[in-house]
Amino acid sequence: MKIYDIAIIGTGPGGLEAALTAKARNKSILLLGSADLSGKVGKSEKIRNYLGIPSVSGEEMNRRYRESLDDMGIEITDRRVSMVYPMGDYFSIQGGQEIYEAKTVIIATGVVPQRLYPGEQEFLGRGVSYCATCDAPLYRQKTAAVIASSPAQEKEAEFLAEFAQKVYYLPLYAQEPVLHDGKIEVVREKPQAIEGGMKAERLVTDQRRIDADGIFILRESVLPDALVPGLETENGHIRTDRDMSTNIEGCFACGDVTGGPYQLMKAAGEGNVAALSAAAYLDRQRRAGKEA
Amino acid sequence: MKIYDIAIIGTGPGGLEAALTAKARNKSILLLGSADLSGKVGKSEKIRNYLGIPSVSGEEMNRRYRESLDDMGIEITDRRVSMVYPMGDYFSIQGGQEIYEAKTVIIATGVVPQRLYPGEQEFLGRGVSYCATCDAPLYRQKTAAVIASSPAQEKEAEFLAEFAQKVYYLPLYAQEPVLHDGKIEVVREKPQAIEGGMKAERLVTDQRRIDADGIFILRESVLPDALVPGLETENGHIRTDRDMSTNIEGCFACGDVTGGPYQLMKAAGEGNVAALSAAAYLDRQRRAGKEA
Repeated sequence: MKIYDIAIIGTGPGGLEAALTAKARNKSILLLGSADLSGKVGKSEKIRNYLGIPSVSGEEMNRRYRESLDDMGIEITDRRVSMVYPMGDYFSIQGGQEIYEAKTVIIATGVVPQRLYPGEQEFLGRGVSYCATCDAPLYRQKTAAVIASSPAQEKEAEFLAEFAQKVYYLPLYAQEPVLHDGKIEVVREKPQAIEGGMKAERLVTDQRRIDADGIFILRESVLPDALVPGLETENGHIRTDRDMSTNIEGCFACGDVTGGPYQLMKAAGEGNVAALSAAAYLDRQRRAGKEA
Repeated sequence: MKIYDIAIIGTGPGGLEAALTAKARNKSILLLGSADLSGKVGKSEKIRNYLGIPSVSGEEMNRRYRESLDDMGIEITDRRVSMVYPMGDYFSIQGGQEIYEAKTVIIATGVVPQRLYPGEQEFLGRGVSYCATCDAPLYRQKTAAVIASSPAQEKEAEFLAEFAQKVYYLPLYAQEPVLHDGKIEVVREKPQAIEGGMKAERLVTDQRRIDADGIFILRESVLPDALVPGLETENGHIRTDRDMSTNIEGCFACGDVTGGPYQLMKAAGEGNVAALSAAAYLDRQRRAGKEA
């Protein structure tokens, strides 16, 4: 398996600037995120304080961002990242159904206002999971419920159904799910809470209680400390030093995920720093390896 | 005298982005620096990692920066700032021959590689000064020497000659100084050190020792801790928190002056944060004032 120098997770201004800078430093990069770049940027009406680009719409800004990627020959690998495992001197990254490996990781996943379900945090890792691809094998012949934020997650439900004996699928989106596995039942109810004892036992909806051994909550983005086990956060944001390093060696962060202000230029500036810090870390590792 | 909300010192990417953001937040701003923007940016051959602006020359980048200023109606006040005095709840700023006042200050003066003269630090404030306009009156009927980095400093020497009985003027630039005061003697020698006892007593050149009560060292930019009395630095850079605040209330910093990496995007990102932190500080002050 190819091991990248730097995996960058997120395609907002932080992640994109990190990718540009890492590429300019001749590092091999894997840029994971949405091929449509940041929806949040795209929806901005007018951006007036991005130095060098006088007042533009968010849509136009994303177009300029794409020009920068093209200019440097950077491609986006369109995957939702559900887990990043620190493996000592490298990272293993679950992106969609694939596993990627990289020596360093830059988390640039932004912030999505997330209301956690009552019981979600309590049972996380004990019946509640954010990654069907990772944890499906634990639910062989069992019952699972999937709360899905977008059609992209239908594939995960089908993968889960290869193991589970029954999957309740609760789409939070309007369009009709296209699911081929007969074990999956689409449930148009509103999830409200997770209940259980030592572990999660049922999903409460606005209409009933659904017994389930595993409850999968598949959002567009995963909260940072759930994304990377052991990552230190503070009020829901990743704690970083001035060089954008986190408490995990080789793991850096940039953009909204590190805290406010939620501004494009702040995010891009941090992406620049994170990439250079990752590059410096790689250089130190290489020198240490040679000396050893 | 008009008191500005935010005075921004420096016209590199940090200062310019701070100005854009502060203006976007409806703060009254004073942007002090060079009308030609950053010479360091202008001389860059190729900038490849400034997200949104694919590979451009430094000259072109400065042109884009100017477009941003024009777009927001921001003007540059072309002054070399020699001193910033924290006055409690506002700042007094010596810019050229003028004094300006602002409730908050953002230092974005960049880094200029500076070799200090032996004895310079030791005698700073005891015969060595960085500001003729500030300290000239102390040298009434005395002898002064001026080390000048550019023709812009000839005016300061003439002002000094209004007080001193004799001024030695050592230009570090090639062109012939235009000085009208007969008390000024141009000395084409290379300054090497400052000597003295309790205070500075003479300037050592490559050819002789010049007795002087005051020695003025006028560089393009003043080291940050000499610029703002009491400002905490670390290895020559201003120490800031993640919100770009310094140890002095109401004083913020951004860009190269806060430390590496010396990159445009890092500087601009910090400028963005510094301006928003200054704005938040002003809002807190206003609320506190109303409550009092």
